[in-house]
Amino acid sequence: MDRRGKRPRTRRGKMRRLLQLCRLELHGRMSFIFGQHLIKPSVVFLRTELSFALVNRKPVVPGHVLVCPLRPVERFRDLHPNEVADLFQMAQKVGNVVEKHFKGTSLTFAMQDGPESGQTVWLQKHDKVGDPSTKWRSEDEMAAEASELRAYFQ
Amino acid sequence: MDRRGKRPRTRRGKMRRLLQLCRLELHGRMSFIFGQHLIKPSVVFLRTELSFALVNRKPVVPGHVLVCPLRPVERFRDLHPNEVADLFQMAQKVGNVVEKHFKGTSLTFAMQDGPESGQTVWLQKHDKVGDPSTKWRSEDEMAAEASELRAYFQ
Repeated sequence: MDRRGKRPRTRRGKMRRLLQLCRLELHGRMSFIFGQHLIKPSVVFLRTELSFALVNRKPVVPGHVLVCPLRPVERFRDLHPNEVADLFQMAQKVGNVVEKHFKGTSLTFAMQDGPESGQTVWLQKHDKVGDPSTKWRSEDEMAAEASELRAYFQ
Repeated sequence: MDRRGKRPRTRRGKMRRLLQLCRLELHGRMSFIFGQHLIKPSVVFLRTELSFALVNRKPVVPGHVLVCPLRPVERFRDLHPNEVADLFQMAQKVGNVVEKHFKGTSLTFAMQDGPESGQTVWLQKHDKVGDPSTKWRSEDEMAAEASELRAYFQ
């Protein structure tokens, strides 16, 4: 189907449709966008049609993870109502798992929205449990944590 | 209609339905619950079927307001998906108005969820814009601010 929902009839139309599908599939498999960063699927542990959750390269505390909309936006106000709903319903699920996995008893959810709020990437959502930590982590370490968290949602 | 969605046929059923409506209406008009506190309608500036927004007695910064679910819960995990959606869709709307009204350029949304996160009331949601302030405000001052904010949604 093309943008107007019609199935292509010509050979050229069919080829274009096939290319569109390939691009979408590749995009879905190969990368996620978080602000100006391209995210590897290995660090993503949950995904819906509108949102995804990933582990952090430099967690402020153990269990500091990010929940993001799939569609890149500059400000929170740019998200559509269904994207807002999906993002925070995912944040709720992720919070439960993070609290359990890191044996926490509380969570902090924070969203810095705009340049004066300390925002360094364009949209983020945190869940924090535990003690402070400031080290940069390797890709393997991040992939291992993502794999552990992913298991809770399967 | 009773709990099963049927319209009452007997006189007793009709009276019971009328009483239910009165109670709901009274609850809607007379009080909101925020954690262990009873909130006066004069400080509430937005309400949906599931959430409400109010001004703060002791704002950390000008434009520090609260967005709460109407159903009192102990933790974020206790909210149903539609309550989560409504709460954050309201937070988005309120954030837009607060940023405009207080002439801000950024917002911080924070939810302290559980005793170890610094939570003093059971569920809250903040939008902050501007400079620090720590004074306690009078009910009149709060009602005046709520009235100004309410006007944006009318």
